[in-house]
Amino acid sequence: MTIEATMGEAAAIEESLEQFLIVLCVSLGVATISQISSFFRQIPYTLLLVIVGLVLAFVDIRLVNLSPELILEIFLPPLLFEAAWNIRWRNLKNNLIPVCLLAIVGVVITVVGIGFTISHFTDLTLPIALLIGASLAATDPVAVIALFRELGVGERLTVLMEGESLFNDGVAVVAFGILVAIPLGTQEFSTTNTLVQFVTFTGIGIAVGGLIGFGISYLTQRFDLPLVEQSLTLVSAYGTYLLTEELGGSGVIGVVTTGLILGNFGSRIGMNPRTRLSVSEFWEFIAFFVNSIVFLLIGDQIDIRGLLDKWQLIAVSIVALVVVRAISIFGLGTVSNLITGKNPISWKQQTVLWWGGLRGSVSIALALSVPAMLEGRQDIIEAVFGVVLFTLLVQGLTMQTIINKLGLIGDRPQRQAYSELLARRNALEQVLERLNEVKLSISIDEAFKENYRRTVQEKLDSVNQEITKLQESYPQLRSLDQEQLQEDLLDIEAETYAELVRSGKLNKNLSPVLEKVFNTEEE
Amino acid sequence: MTIEATMGEAAAIEESLEQFLIVLCVSLGVATISQISSFFRQIPYTLLLVIVGLVLAFVDIRLVNLSPELILEIFLPPLLFEAAWNIRWRNLKNNLIPVCLLAIVGVVITVVGIGFTISHFTDLTLPIALLIGASLAATDPVAVIALFRELGVGERLTVLMEGESLFNDGVAVVAFGILVAIPLGTQEFSTTNTLVQFVTFTGIGIAVGGLIGFGISYLTQRFDLPLVEQSLTLVSAYGTYLLTEELGGSGVIGVVTTGLILGNFGSRIGMNPRTRLSVSEFWEFIAFFVNSIVFLLIGDQIDIRGLLDKWQLIAVSIVALVVVRAISIFGLGTVSNLITGKNPISWKQQTVLWWGGLRGSVSIALALSVPAMLEGRQDIIEAVFGVVLFTLLVQGLTMQTIINKLGLIGDRPQRQAYSELLARRNALEQVLERLNEVKLSISIDEAFKENYRRTVQEKLDSVNQEITKLQESYPQLRSLDQEQLQEDLLDIEAETYAELVRSGKLNKNLSPVLEKVFNTEEE
Repeated sequence: MTIEATMGEAAAIEESLEQFLIVLCVSLGVATISQISSFFRQIPYTLLLVIVGLVLAFVDIRLVNLSPELILEIFLPPLLFEAAWNIRWRNLKNNLIPVCLLAIVGVVITVVGIGFTISHFTDLTLPIALLIGASLAATDPVAVIALFRELGVGERLTVLMEGESLFNDGVAVVAFGILVAIPLGTQEFSTTNTLVQFVTFTGIGIAVGGLIGFGISYLTQRFDLPLVEQSLTLVSAYGTYLLTEELGGSGVIGVVTTGLILGNFGSRIGMNPRTRLSVSEFWEFIAFFVNSIVFLLIGDQIDIRGLLDKWQLIAVSIVALVVVRAISIFGLGTVSNLITGKNPISWKQQTVLWWGGLRGSVSIALALSVPAMLEGRQDIIEAVFGVVLFTLLVQGLTMQTIINKLGLIGDRPQRQAYSELLARRNALEQVLERLNEVKLSISIDEAFKENYRRTVQEKLDSVNQEITKLQESYPQLRSLDQEQLQEDLLDIEAETYAELVRSGKLNKNLSPVLEKVFNTEEE
Repeated sequence: MTIEATMGEAAAIEESLEQFLIVLCVSLGVATISQISSFFRQIPYTLLLVIVGLVLAFVDIRLVNLSPELILEIFLPPLLFEAAWNIRWRNLKNNLIPVCLLAIVGVVITVVGIGFTISHFTDLTLPIALLIGASLAATDPVAVIALFRELGVGERLTVLMEGESLFNDGVAVVAFGILVAIPLGTQEFSTTNTLVQFVTFTGIGIAVGGLIGFGISYLTQRFDLPLVEQSLTLVSAYGTYLLTEELGGSGVIGVVTTGLILGNFGSRIGMNPRTRLSVSEFWEFIAFFVNSIVFLLIGDQIDIRGLLDKWQLIAVSIVALVVVRAISIFGLGTVSNLITGKNPISWKQQTVLWWGGLRGSVSIALALSVPAMLEGRQDIIEAVFGVVLFTLLVQGLTMQTIINKLGLIGDRPQRQAYSELLARRNALEQVLERLNEVKLSISIDEAFKENYRRTVQEKLDSVNQEITKLQESYPQLRSLDQEQLQEDLLDIEAETYAELVRSGKLNKNLSPVLEKVFNTEEE
């Protein structure tokens, strides 16, 4: 090791750390402002980040070069893992038919529809146009889901949107991989070939993801080491991705499989509730962190002036995307309703799914990963960046209005506020109780205690007032206690089941009883 | 961006990710084994990691090149931040005199003592020997503190050891920076110069750390955004380090200052208790994670055959270190006892401090950061690596015996077990209560409920049995409830204070009362 090498390395590490910190500080600033100012709070903060990134790019401040590797290998695995970890299998199972239709058939419709439209209306060749279609087939639900949560839109839409995105990312990446080989001339296109490849890619992904997921689930069952278990989730997210790619499969599908298994099975049988909570919080933080960086960098990567030159191509792409997604959502929605029969997806929900299909980092990563030797690479990049920007800003910023107009806003915000108030009241009551309990045992000044008790009592009164006010305005909230209780009980039961599996007590006598519980849970 | 550049970048990212994952899997494997096997559980897992690293190095498997930049800029800031975040100011304040004596005078004694001994007994020049001394002046308490926790050694030893290490890291790095300039001929040595430099380095560190720490404390007081606040702690750890170094100060001291302020002040006035807990857990995880990597890499970095060639130099260094630390600890301990008067550090405690002064990553980072142009660099590296290895393995693995022999083991393990059992009983009782409550409201099979209730009741009985058994063996545990209550009350009060500051209600009428609380707290 020569001294120059050392100093070069030092400078490189320091520079990337500094860049990283600058990106982070800007992101955090935006995240904070978006929450504090009531004007900005109406905009999902991811969109605000894109806008800030755009402004920075416009005044020619380039933060970091957003390479496809950075997106696909560093940012995507944790984001997918977190989404998969948090999605409830029982919800997903109830919506498996529409989700699979959207994620598989929907991607095919998008690729083919956008491809043929662009190659027909512009002078791009079909192979290039299909690559634009494949890049745009992956949806990015982060901004919209955040909005759903805030507005209290029903759980079903969230599951459909997240489920679709979870799986169509993988399918789109596989489709892109197959399609990119064609214009390079390394492979002749044939439907059989494509199908075989697709099945291989996803099959390896599911197999590796399943092995790692179940392997770690049963491994963590053998010990109770919170920090090791937490580390294992991080290792499994990146490890599954790398290993699957190494074996020629789809890393994206691998990570999603691992995440689903660990979140729904492993975390129940292998982790104690405390660990599970820590791990969930850890991943929530990682997702927040990565998203903050990604959306800022997406904005910062876009060259508005470059996009303006290609406005015709972009306009055609946008129209193609919007129309094709309408066909895909409303068509597949109808098909799904016909198949499942009960509990159809209403046209209002379909409208939200259609307009809420934003595009994000995966689309950008795919566009950027087109080999430089391919003529038309720049066209693909400009088209995809333009469409992503349109979906994020135009669709993203109008979503709230549309949800409002369709009357899909639920009473979740009130319910949220209500249960927070109940928790607060509970906590304050406990403090008061404690204070009275320790009357004799502690040498604390009586005056202070009195003062303190008064403060707590005042707070408690104001909380009680707010609770009454809410109950008067929204009478249905009174039933919330009941619902909460029901949910708690389900959780306790799931816990018991996990506890039994853990202690190896699950035998024939018990399992029919437990099956019943699971059925109750899924109702 | 040409395609080669892209592919090169992709390969580089993938390779470092893979290396990172391999390191992580090995570390986790070791961490897991160390907990599961009762034989290995006697060894602190950090030492086990070093041993595994050594074995890997011996069969010539080199994982990652552990550069000084990697240690100082990537690994050290989070480790220092975590230690500072968790140390309680009120404990530190009570031990400020011995800690400062050890961290400042102790470092001077170590540097000078080791330097003169080595230059006298070997053929190394004094400037080189002093650099060895400076590298070895920073202690690394991780392995020993873990042992303390496990064995239930009194809190005071933990505070002394952690406090010393927290501050002597900074002093050692500053001393090293000053000393390394001398043999390079860029600076003449003079005591005045050195003192001025020392004061400047630490002064800038404290100033920047204080500004950032208090700045973020007051900033987070203005909003309640858990994820943003959590991110801010991460940003402040790295940001303080980089900014302080940029301004010519000591980054280590900067980070420690920020961590102390945020952990003791900012987290109380600016974060709600939930956030504080999440952030603490997050940092616990980061520290575990980084330590797992660092200790494995320390072992993996050592070339046993190279060390054997220099056995004389290493032997002299080891003897010098052990003797000089004896002088420093027993001498400064006596001085400290004379100054403070009450509550002296017993000779047993001093013995543990002396033998428990292991060396770790900071020493290695400093040795590796000696410029290659300096003749004698290799000697410094070999000597420091040899001493670090000796302290970790010989001192580290005999610590438990010494603590045992000195009779310093407390009843903390039992207390830990006892309060866990109490918590468990509480939880189970709540479950039972819940089950009875919901008799009417939920449509759950009665047979299952009965079965379930029986299971819970069985568990509750066995927990109760264990509690009784523990109470019989250790009667003093009965007073634990009382102590716990007292601690809870102190926490509640601190909470109230924070709540008052948050809501801006802290006025003249209240503050004298609160001052009293703080005094009670510090007793």
